Parts: sequence; C-alpha cells; structure tokens
Amino acid sequence: MEKIYKKFKSELLDSCVPFWLDNAIDTEYGGILNCLDRYGKVYSEDKSVWMQGRCGYMFSYIYNNIDKNTKYLEFAKSCIDFATNHCIDHDGRMFFTVTRDGKPLRKRRYWFSETFYIIANAEYYMATKDTKYLNAAKKYFSFVLDMYENPQNDPYKITPKSFDETRKTKSLANPMILLNVASIMRDADNEKSFDYNSIIDNLINDIKSFYKSDFNALFENIDAKDNSVILNSAPCRVINPGHDIECSWFLLEEAIKRNDNELIKFAETVFNNAFELGWDNEYGGIFYFKDILGLPVEAYEHDMKLWWPHNEAIIASLMFYLYTKNSKYKEIFDKVCDYAFEHFSDKEYGEWFGYLRRDGKCTEPPCKGHTYKGPFHVMRMLAKCMKCIEKMEEYK
Amino acid sequence: MEKIYKKFKSELLDSCVPFWLDNAIDTEYGGILNCLDRYGKVYSEDKSVWMQGRCGYMFSYIYNNIDKNTKYLEFAKSCIDFATNHCIDHDGRMFFTVTRDGKPLRKRRYWFSETFYIIANAEYYMATKDTKYLNAAKKYFSFVLDMYENPQNDPYKITPKSFDETRKTKSLANPMILLNVASIMRDADNEKSFDYNSIIDNLINDIKSFYKSDFNALFENIDAKDNSVILNSAPCRVINPGHDIECSWFLLEEAIKRNDNELIKFAETVFNNAFELGWDNEYGGIFYFKDILGLPVEAYEHDMKLWWPHNEAIIASLMFYLYTKNSKYKEIFDKVCDYAFEHFSDKEYGEWFGYLRRDGKCTEPPCKGHTYKGPFHVMRMLAKCMKCIEKMEEYK
Repeated sequence: MEKIYKKFKSELLDSCVPFWLDNAIDTEYGGILNCLDRYGKVYSEDKSVWMQGRCGYMFSYIYNNIDKNTKYLEFAKSCIDFATNHCIDHDGRMFFTVTRDGKPLRKRRYWFSETFYIIANAEYYMATKDTKYLNAAKKYFSFVLDMYENPQNDPYKITPKSFDETRKTKSLANPMILLNVASIMRDADNEKSFDYNSIIDNLINDIKSFYKSDFNALFENIDAKDNSVILNSAPCRVINPGHDIECSWFLLEEAIKRNDNELIKFAETVFNNAFELGWDNEYGGIFYFKDILGLPVEAYEHDMKLWWPHNEAIIASLMFYLYTKNSKYKEIFDKVCDYAFEHFSDKEYGEWFGYLRRDGKCTEPPCKGHTYKGPFHVMRMLAKCMKCIEKMEEYK
Repeated sequence: MEKIYKKFKSELLDSCVPFWLDNAIDTEYGGILNCLDRYGKVYSEDKSVWMQGRCGYMFSYIYNNIDKNTKYLEFAKSCIDFATNHCIDHDGRMFFTVTRDGKPLRKRRYWFSETFYIIANAEYYMATKDTKYLNAAKKYFSFVLDMYENPQNDPYKITPKSFDETRKTKSLANPMILLNVASIMRDADNEKSFDYNSIIDNLINDIKSFYKSDFNALFENIDAKDNSVILNSAPCRVINPGHDIECSWFLLEEAIKRNDNELIKFAETVFNNAFELGWDNEYGGIFYFKDILGLPVEAYEHDMKLWWPHNEAIIASLMFYLYTKNSKYKEIFDKVCDYAFEHFSDKEYGEWFGYLRRDGKCTEPPCKGHTYKGPFHVMRMLAKCMKCIEKMEEYK
C-alpha cells in the first residue's frame, strides 16, 4: 500500500495537476479551457460548463485533502466565478457549452451543469469558509432537488426529447449524481440546512429501483411507470458498467458511514456484476456499454475503452478491498491498475489519454481534454485512493 | 467490367435483397423492422422512420431498374404506407422513431425523415404509376423545400439546439440531400410541377459555399452569416469524408446530365480531396470523421470504419472512372472494393456489417441493421454501379 500511495501521489501531483495548471487556465477570460490535445495545446475554445464546475470542485478538493497550494484555489475560484458570471441563463438554469468569452452556445435539458456547480461551490467553501459559495451551493442544491422531485418545476421549458405517452423512462444518472452531491453538501453545510440523511435515504431507494436481480444488473434506463425493464428496445437494454461501478462506491462510502451491512452487500453486488459484465477478457479494459442480453448495442463507441470507467473501478476495488479485506478486490484493483497505467497514463506529457479503441490503442490524434474530460475522474481517483489508504492503513 | 457487374449483381440479389426480405418485413404491423443482428434476428423493435422511406425507395428502385419482382414492390408499399399511417405528426412533420405498432417515440428537428419519405413515394410512383404516391411526394417536396428556404415556416417549434445569436451555422447535409431528392423528383414528375433545374441550380450554389479552397475541403458546417469556417471550435472543423464523397457523385450525376465541365471538375476536386483526407494509410478503409487541421475530433467514433462511406466511394470512383477514363479512379475503385468486400461483406449470412473498429474488425456483436442502417447504401451502390456499367459499356 505504501508503494501504491507513492505512485498515486506522484501521478496526481507530478503528472495530472501540472498538466492542467500549465495548459488549461484561461488567463484572459477566466475558467478552464477544457479541450487540450496530447501536448496540452488548446484545440477548441468552446468551454464545457460541466468542466468549470468539475475543475472548481477538484482543485478545491486537492487543496482541502492533499496539498495546500493556493494556486489550486485560484484556479478553482476562476472556474466557479466564470460559471457564475457567464454560464447561468435568465431562468436560473445553466448552459452546457459557452464560447471562450462566455457567450451561450448550448443549453441542455439535463441539470448536470448545475450539479457540478454545486459541488464546486461546496468544496470551495470548505477551503475558504467564504459563505458566498456555500450559499450558491445551497441555492442550487435546492433548485436541482426540486427539479428532480418535481420535473414540472424546471423553468426550462425545452421541447420533450421523447413522447412520454408512448414510453416514459427514468435514468439512473439522476439519483446517482445527486447521491454524490448530497454527500458533499452534508460535509460542507454545518448548519444542516437540509435533512441530508433523509434525502440520501430516498436517493438510495431510487437507485435500488434500477437494480434487477433477474438480470444481475443495475440498468441505466427503466420504465418510469412501473420500474420495469423495456426489453424489446435496444437503448433500454444498455448497461454502462463504468457508471454502475461509480455508483457502487458512492453507495459503499455511504454504507460505511452508516455502518449499514445490507447496503454494503448491495454495493458489492452492483460492483461485482458490473465488473464481470464490463471487463474485456480478450483485450483487457472495461467496455463502455454492454447489452444485457448480449445483443448489438447501437452506440457506435460501445466497445471503446474510456478512461473514466477505469478510474471508477480503481477507486471501487480499493475501497471494497480495504473495507472487506477480500483479496478478490485486490486482484481486480491490480488488474485494472495494470491496464490503466499502461494504456491511459501518458508518461511523456502527463495526464491520461481519454479514448482508446477496443484494442487499447488511442484514437488519433489523442486528446487529454474534451467536452466530457477534464481535471476530474483521474484526479478524483488518485486523491480518493490516497485518502482511503491514509484512513484505513493510517499510512501518511 | 463484366466481372464486376456479375459480382455486384450477385451481391445485390443473392446476399443483400434476401437478407432484408427474409428478416426485416413486419408481417404484423407493416413496414420494416430495421434493427437486425448478424443473423437477421430483430434485436430492437423500435422502428426508424428514415428506414421506412429508404427501404420504400430502394426496393422500388431495384424493381424499376434491376429486377421486376413484385415482392419488392409489396415491401416498398408496406414501408411507405406504414410511414403514411403512423409516422406523421399532427403538424405534418414526421417522427424519427416509432414503436413497432407505430406509436411515436422521438421527433427531431431535422427533416430527413421527410426527405426519405419523398424519394420513396416518387420511386414507388415510377413503378406503379399510382398518382397517390406522386402526390404525396410532391406535397412533401414542397413542404421540405419551403422549410429549407424559410426555416421560420417549419411548423415544429422545437426549442433551438443552440444560441443563434452567439453562433449560427448551416449544414452541408441539407442542400446535399435535397439535391438528390430534387433529382429523383425530376425523374418521377413528368408534369414538372416544380422548376427542378432552377431548384437544383440553387442547391449546387449552396453546396459550393461549403467548399473552401484554402483548406481543399468541403466542410460540414460553416458560419451562416458569412459562409466562413469557424476554426476555433472543434465541431466546426470536422470533415465527413464519406459525406463529401457522396456529394461528389450527386454533383457528377447532375454535371453529366448538364454536360457541365466546370461542375465535373468541381465534383472531382471534392472527391479527390475527401478521399485523400479520409483514406487510412495504416489500416485501410475510410475514416468516419477527420479534423481539417489534424487536431483531435471530439466524436468518440471518429476513427471507426462505417459501411456507407465505402459504398459512396465505390459509386463515385466508378462513375469518375467511367466518365473521365482516368485510371487513377479505377485504382481507387479497386482499392475500396478490395477493402470493403473483405471487411464489410458477410459471406456467411448475407448483407454487410455496419460498424468496424479502425483495425477493420467488427464491433461485437456485429449488426446488419440499425437505426441508421437498413437496405439503402449497400444496395444503392450495387444497383447504381450496375446501371453505370450498363450505360457506359452497353453491357448487359
């Protein structure tokens, strides 16, 4: 564990953190320029709003937990302030992408820009105790929670994506991401402005409704009417193993806090099923999507290897190992680390490649930053694993 | 050429046509079930509206041009009637996907469901002379042309995808598909209810505005204000070589009809640039997307090999060869045929695989039918090439 700790610390502070600090800060307009090629060069100036929040969160988290470097806080603040000043529409909903100088490009129906904005504000507040940021986090937490519970309260009256009267589905992503957000809010908000534990109880119940024991799988989409699986439609059969694995450690973290053995067992079941379905026995690595019946998946990229499911699997397997002491999880941890550090980690220019073909080779030219990839999953994995090792082994 | 003709005829009538006739006809609700796995088994019952039109067009075309088998017309009619009865919304706009029994699932902003519906009705009319179908084609041609020229007349008031006041782009797909539609309408409509030649003149001019000689490329998206390329945004730099190659033979067909040498030269330029940019010198095959500056492409699937760009390249290279007699095009034709027949054509179960990884291996499990793949590109390529050979060599 000492060796792993040192390796992860070096990957975090010598490879990932400098890659973003050196290349991604927009010194002119503020915030993060998230589209970076292998060498750190900006290949697109369009800014991801998700990434303003994720970067604001992650650099605050590294500051709070790993290394008290004020540069991290400056970068985090720049991202959060850019989001506050340029990424919020008149109706309070946030954009999805904006131009470099902060003009709106796209706004989507989903409220994930908002969830990443909440955790950024909450984590930055924990670093600075500046209540302005806690207040923003609380305001947006209340806003998003209300839209989750009462979709009709969403002020963004976008044309529906599909015809609910024909088929209304619900998505695992919503309760899953909110579980993580609520957990971070509970840490930040000493006044307990919300009944976080009860909110989390409900979210865990909602997540459980996506688990179908007939299929040994946590589904991405189920019928909103009766929580059933819609088997005759390919998109409704898709399993996202990385998502399920991420969910498993969100659940495990909560279960450990609650000392809830039943929930630990559930989290283990989710993890084991997802890893077994997701691991590619031929080439190694974790598939992006799988069909629960083994039929074709329509998303072209379904058999690619993306960096983030590997990050989630490393955190989850380490947590399960440290908590249960079951050596099976250490073997999975080693297997995923071997694959990921060999294929994703760029020893020459820092950070991790984002997108590999099934055979483990990069799509070319490779990129390190993207609308959906920034300083988040890799750094969260490295930092969370360090914290787990510190906590469980009392190693520091 | 005789050998090619026989090979293509056999691929069409012994491999592709029976694959769809045997597996894709929905005997219960009508229309085509387009999601078929390698063996022809339906893996998803959701129906693509594009595919109702494309299948209706293609089986009518094969009947009109290759093989007067009434089964083809029955299948075509079933698809067109299913679309007429179940795939049109109250506002006249068509859906994108529906359930097997014809309930709406999704409706998109783009009017490509409508364009494929037009060519299906027009081609079916040419087979049957049933004016009901010509009238439907004319009605929808007028409707779509009006939306193209006056987007504000689109009755579907869907929330805009992006903020036009920040960046308004226009897309090559629109004039390109309309060029093909107008050309088919001109063949079908003996009364010349529209001034097709003048419509086509305008569409060709519109297409030319996407060609940028500074970059030797036909772009997918340009600035709607001044037709400029937006270089600082990755999605605006994307070139779709298969699309450009398809466009090149649409232009060549029209140029030959008009005996317009300047247009032939333009079509050749488009083809040569796209093929050079798109061909993968390492693994063979045509890339799905390329960045004009050689920078990363955000679409995950950008370096995959899809069946249809290869179909377009085979038609285009054969047409350019037969018309110009330049042996360069015969070499390209042979190179693409060698790759495509080896990697895409399924000798065992018929039809072509849709989706290969960069290395030319299928994504697994493979599929033959998909929301975006049906009896269209492969069959159109085989039939068009047969017609070209018949015409130019007077071989039959």
